[in-house]
Amino acid sequence: MASDTDGFEELTLHSEPAFSGNLLRLRIDTVRLPDGGKATREIVQHPGAVAIVPVTADGQLLMVRQWRHPVAKVTLEIPAGTLTPGESPERCAQRELVEEVGYFPGQLDKLTTVLVSPGYSDETIHIFMARQLQHQGRQPHPQADVSWAPDPDENVHLATVPLRKAVALCTQGAIADAKSVAGILLAWERLQGRP
Amino acid sequence: MASDTDGFEELTLHSEPAFSGNLLRLRIDTVRLPDGGKATREIVQHPGAVAIVPVTADGQLLMVRQWRHPVAKVTLEIPAGTLTPGESPERCAQRELVEEVGYFPGQLDKLTTVLVSPGYSDETIHIFMARQLQHQGRQPHPQADVSWAPDPDENVHLATVPLRKAVALCTQGAIADAKSVAGILLAWERLQGRP
Repeated sequence: MASDTDGFEELTLHSEPAFSGNLLRLRIDTVRLPDGGKATREIVQHPGAVAIVPVTADGQLLMVRQWRHPVAKVTLEIPAGTLTPGESPERCAQRELVEEVGYFPGQLDKLTTVLVSPGYSDETIHIFMARQLQHQGRQPHPQADVSWAPDPDENVHLATVPLRKAVALCTQGAIADAKSVAGILLAWERLQGRP
Repeated sequence: MASDTDGFEELTLHSEPAFSGNLLRLRIDTVRLPDGGKATREIVQHPGAVAIVPVTADGQLLMVRQWRHPVAKVTLEIPAGTLTPGESPERCAQRELVEEVGYFPGQLDKLTTVLVSPGYSDETIHIFMARQLQHQGRQPHPQADVSWAPDPDENVHLATVPLRKAVALCTQGAIADAKSVAGILLAWERLQGRP
């Protein structure tokens, strides 16, 4: 039986570590192409991540505003975080939602798993929709923008946006983070009852 | 007047190149946090890219199937490519569409610019919807999957998918590439006449 990868697959001939940091590693693979030629591939290695689309009972989306140093901008994103070793995506989603916005998800529905940049990165992000949000005692209530810094390395501010408005912010380019655009539009499709 | 970045911005104290390859560079920034503390940021530097949602007059989406070595999978994605120095996003979109699927876009509408992974990468992808597609003489016509390898380093196969079905493939997780999910759902919103 013909496999889905027939005629496509590249075989790794050689793999060379090129960088190892706290979050990222980078390696250079030399590959054999299907036509017999050779090429090199620069590959960023990432532990993987989760992102959460948290929707309240009255249709509000809980988002985070934060400084993103690589792009030198404040972005509006859905809560997200990196998987820790041995942690399931669901457990990571629960942990990150409490850490970033102060709510525990009573219901967690998988929307999809995206490949962030499959041309040069192995990172996948598991995206969930979270509902039945349970306010965790000591955390701030999301009435408006509230300063909230659970991780000393991160300066995360909560922002509450009606889901319908968040969809419009995606189409208008005001929400630019790729996982947020994908997650918000997928949640919107799901909640409209589309396949 | 208060700036959007007040209380958020991190100042770069020191920046150290850590890797320089053909496609990617990586640097480590030491930053001053808003609270006065210090942190390090590992930052992947990428030239930027474009992605195109090419929709034919009868509602077919032209996509590409290709082996993506970092994730060891064949993916179904919208056509995309890296900006060359001095090239405008529009010109790059025209070039990549001809190179990857053999059509020139008579109409090119900007959908958005996404940040691929703003936590550790500076990469932006300009996403366009392409219409009034003009078949370029010697390239294959997209009747079905056709082998098509314009770049000797890339093994790209054309796949034609009804746009409505592509939306369903995004919601079902069969299209997993993040820029493709964002681009397809944004094009769908745009074509439905939603804001």
